[in-house]
Amino acid sequence: MHKRVTLADVAQLAGVHPGTVSRALNEKTESQVNQATARRVRRVAKQLGYTPNAVARGLRTRLSMTIGVIIPDLTNPIFPPIVRGIDSYLAPRGYSALVVNTDGSNTAERTLFESLMERQVDGFIVATGHSQHQLMAEAHSRGVHAVMVNRDANGVPYSSVIGDDAQGIRAAVEHLVKLGHTKIVHLAGPVGFSTSHIRASAFVAACKEYDVPGRVFDTPAYSIEAGQEALDALLDSQLDPATAIVASNDLLALGAYHSLRSHGLRCPEDVSVVGFNDMPFAGDFQPPMTTVRAPHFEMGVESARLLLSEIAGSLSGAVMVTLPVSLVIRGSTAAAPH
Amino acid sequence: MHKRVTLADVAQLAGVHPGTVSRALNEKTESQVNQATARRVRRVAKQLGYTPNAVARGLRTRLSMTIGVIIPDLTNPIFPPIVRGIDSYLAPRGYSALVVNTDGSNTAERTLFESLMERQVDGFIVATGHSQHQLMAEAHSRGVHAVMVNRDANGVPYSSVIGDDAQGIRAAVEHLVKLGHTKIVHLAGPVGFSTSHIRASAFVAACKEYDVPGRVFDTPAYSIEAGQEALDALLDSQLDPATAIVASNDLLALGAYHSLRSHGLRCPEDVSVVGFNDMPFAGDFQPPMTTVRAPHFEMGVESARLLLSEIAGSLSGAVMVTLPVSLVIRGSTAAAPH
Repeated sequence: MHKRVTLADVAQLAGVHPGTVSRALNEKTESQVNQATARRVRRVAKQLGYTPNAVARGLRTRLSMTIGVIIPDLTNPIFPPIVRGIDSYLAPRGYSALVVNTDGSNTAERTLFESLMERQVDGFIVATGHSQHQLMAEAHSRGVHAVMVNRDANGVPYSSVIGDDAQGIRAAVEHLVKLGHTKIVHLAGPVGFSTSHIRASAFVAACKEYDVPGRVFDTPAYSIEAGQEALDALLDSQLDPATAIVASNDLLALGAYHSLRSHGLRCPEDVSVVGFNDMPFAGDFQPPMTTVRAPHFEMGVESARLLLSEIAGSLSGAVMVTLPVSLVIRGSTAAAPH
Repeated sequence: MHKRVTLADVAQLAGVHPGTVSRALNEKTESQVNQATARRVRRVAKQLGYTPNAVARGLRTRLSMTIGVIIPDLTNPIFPPIVRGIDSYLAPRGYSALVVNTDGSNTAERTLFESLMERQVDGFIVATGHSQHQLMAEAHSRGVHAVMVNRDANGVPYSSVIGDDAQGIRAAVEHLVKLGHTKIVHLAGPVGFSTSHIRASAFVAACKEYDVPGRVFDTPAYSIEAGQEALDALLDSQLDPATAIVASNDLLALGAYHSLRSHGLRCPEDVSVVGFNDMPFAGDFQPPMTTVRAPHFEMGVESARLLLSEIAGSLSGAVMVTLPVSLVIRGSTAAAPH
């Protein structure tokens, strides 16, 4: 019996567009509506028991109180802490996150983005930034609110929250050099990802700084399989073998573990391995993984904070927030073999 | 002006439990209620203008195309695959999932549930089922659509999707008995969780079947710390030590690893350990974990399929779907020590 009277009901009975009802019932905007029409709308609203306060509230905010969160893959263990960090900031403020997974597909990303736009999300937090992020450039030109997390904005004037990846990679190289390693290889992330680029550049710079010859091998994906195959290729080649590996993330490092094992090499006795992220359970791997810890939960919190500030109009321009990282030394690194 | 009359209002005025109102006003269940009570409830409902089908009708005709997904904690690695399974079914059908985390708090669960109701979700997928799930009983009496996943519905007439936990635990015990173990301990999950109860009962039954004395130790949480502390207590006690441990999930098993290590015991040479779930990276732990693999992604898919069927009205009643599990034998189990 209590079918809620909607704006659409009022619009239909008054014979006007719902937007006209909105404007007519809001004191700030009623002047935009023909006076006779506004009177008719008010009469119909009263007749149907439609409460102008509800309208005013809807109009004042016009927010869906929903944020779209675009990530590559929730089963990559760095993303749950980021998502929970985002949620921990949004939830107490009445916002909910709609999380979507692109699985690295640009096509999927575009489709999901448009679908979230249709759901009238108030803004986006995006963790899929590519070096060339056409979609985000377009989103910016459409006036869409967004913040990048764990990726920099690569020229698109959105705010971003990243870890200090360069500092982390530098600490990893320094740690290995102090252990006597001189043959160090970097398993880089896939070309086109901003994190791959930043970490590989930092590796090259750190090797130069410590005066060791650093070699970089690209991988096609941030996955265990990609890390394993890349190191398999190196170990099966006639190239001078490495005594230490700095991987662009923990999954690649785990793939390196697998490759070493299948080649009868021990970690860390024969080859040391350093990962990046300190993903959950990295300390429980065999051997426990030395890795760069990035503050994913805090990155999520910070990205949500920036986005809500931007939506509220209290952010004067795009900012880049860089959070500190730290090297966690465990069992996968040891003195270089003689 | 339109303060909605709730089930609770009717219950209060009629002087009965909300569940009684629900049953009395549903033609399928009214026979479960004393006739005089049912008459009183119907009279009060009519008097207050409460319509038992309002929720259902509202949902049917005004779909938000949003599903609330209530889980304990996204950073528990079994949940991302469940969530992605859910999403893989919902997304192509135009639905989005709003995922919320309760962190095991009943209060948080209730708050999040109400907040999702305010967002007019079309239904819920719930992975937080307790043995006594008061909230879900109330939700059912309010006509809310829901499906339980990884938890059974414990008497609340909702559909549920679970793994065949009992079969998995039986396979674990059989595996250990064949390896010569006779002193087997079960690290049970926290009291009040349906999974804890099902797995512990299955453990006791399997030990009886294989004629070995099985002991059960409760833990306060499904966490690494809880597993470690429970096994610490056992190892530090004067009790007859175990040569094998069946844990109620992989996190408890990982805690057992930590406890064994801190007591100078080797896994599997001194003590074998079996986990449950085969969570991501279980094969990369030290040692690689023997565990029962549950099909989490598929469970997510199936729960979403059931929920949309229920929303569409094409499900004639609550069903329980049990998916097969399998024992994955890795390096944490070996022959019993002599």
